[in-house]
Amino acid sequence: MSTTPAAEVRHRCRRGELAGATAGLAPGQVQANLAILPQSLTYDFLLFCQRNPQACPVLEVTEAGDPEPRLLAPGADLRTDLPRYRVFRNGELVAEPTAIGEHWRDDLVGFLLGCSFTFEAAMIAAGLPVRHVEERANVPMYRTNVSCVPAGPFRGPLVVTMRPLTPAQAIRAVRITSRYPRAHGAPVHLGDPAGLGIGDLSRPDWGDAVTIREGEIPVFWACGVTSQAAIAEARPELAITHAPGCMFITDVRHEELAS
Amino acid sequence: MSTTPAAEVRHRCRRGELAGATAGLAPGQVQANLAILPQSLTYDFLLFCQRNPQACPVLEVTEAGDPEPRLLAPGADLRTDLPRYRVFRNGELVAEPTAIGEHWRDDLVGFLLGCSFTFEAAMIAAGLPVRHVEERANVPMYRTNVSCVPAGPFRGPLVVTMRPLTPAQAIRAVRITSRYPRAHGAPVHLGDPAGLGIGDLSRPDWGDAVTIREGEIPVFWACGVTSQAAIAEARPELAITHAPGCMFITDVRHEELAS
Repeated sequence: MSTTPAAEVRHRCRRGELAGATAGLAPGQVQANLAILPQSLTYDFLLFCQRNPQACPVLEVTEAGDPEPRLLAPGADLRTDLPRYRVFRNGELVAEPTAIGEHWRDDLVGFLLGCSFTFEAAMIAAGLPVRHVEERANVPMYRTNVSCVPAGPFRGPLVVTMRPLTPAQAIRAVRITSRYPRAHGAPVHLGDPAGLGIGDLSRPDWGDAVTIREGEIPVFWACGVTSQAAIAEARPELAITHAPGCMFITDVRHEELAS
Repeated sequence: MSTTPAAEVRHRCRRGELAGATAGLAPGQVQANLAILPQSLTYDFLLFCQRNPQACPVLEVTEAGDPEPRLLAPGADLRTDLPRYRVFRNGELVAEPTAIGEHWRDDLVGFLLGCSFTFEAAMIAAGLPVRHVEERANVPMYRTNVSCVPAGPFRGPLVVTMRPLTPAQAIRAVRITSRYPRAHGAPVHLGDPAGLGIGDLSRPDWGDAVTIREGEIPVFWACGVTSQAAIAEARPELAITHAPGCMFITDVRHEELAS
């Protein structure tokens, strides 16, 4: 049976052969954030995403109890096809397994959200620098003083990623990343970090600090971790997400998401 | 107290002084389709919209029981501020009132969806013809053979609007309307109507036929009536929509929706 690079990565996860980060795997394929919630919370979570679309661009919502993302990757299984998961009970991290079959229930719904890898691929293709990729680090992420529009129990700060660029590069990056509204789209801020209530760029809340060179300004994009912060705030009896960097790889190509 | 043109139209509706179509009123302001549903159906309807975003671009979802669209028009009241409504019980049209206070309940949720007036304003500003406006008719609408992605009981055909353009104008119209993904965005088809299963352009399913001149091709956009067809299919015990052409006028300007 022939297979695609995306399916091959999913099968490696399923066979337990891959338990680490997916950056750089199956180049050209859209990778997605995963959030799994019980049906009782799915309306409020979907509404939270609708109200905060730059941070939480919904690519697919599965049917309750069905682990197959039929639109993005027919035949895939959200219970096994990511390298590693995080399981939260009442807001507390209780496990980081490589499969979640034992936690699966008939009332669970999977949300797949767009991810910055898509617009970073477009930036790199356009010759723009992506500093954390150059420095082989994780993208720096910061909690901001911007509040998301709440929905039911889901609320919290906008979380952003930062990439340093010259002003001319920043202008090109706005144009290029605007084409991917389903992968966070255009930046939300550039220049003075205080504009987002960020005190010290060298101390990100998640990920690694990166070098900002002479003549560069920080450019900030909405980040999918926003949804995880909102889920933590809601403290659901059960929530399952991908482990950091361990994304779901879809059958969709980046260019198919371009507007 | 000073007021805006949008608020003035809403107040005229509220006072019972306006019960007709809103086309051309409060120029520059975004107008929206309205669908009101009981809370038991809102997850499936929101998911239907997420799965069919070109036809059903969600601009705002109100809190259950709260008739105020706090994001699009703070202070407005969805029970009184549209010229005319349609009330459906079990899928049957039972009333076309100018206010819906007597039907209002604590479990009702309002959905406001983007509308083609937004991209038509951009087309007109760019010097492109909008035939039904020239002919003072309603836009022709057609049921297609394209099925929407269903969600729960919501399912049915994609409904489209049609505007005749020359090929060169059609190319410009693609570029211009693409900027408004929250108002149906780019066309879904152009040229041969058979590509959408439309047999006879002179017999639209809703609205009026318009003249197609020598050298013009039909260009088709997704239409908000798609959501009404899906609601009809679901036959909810109660649903309330705007009456055709009697839209909700928001405080948002068209350009604020541009991508």
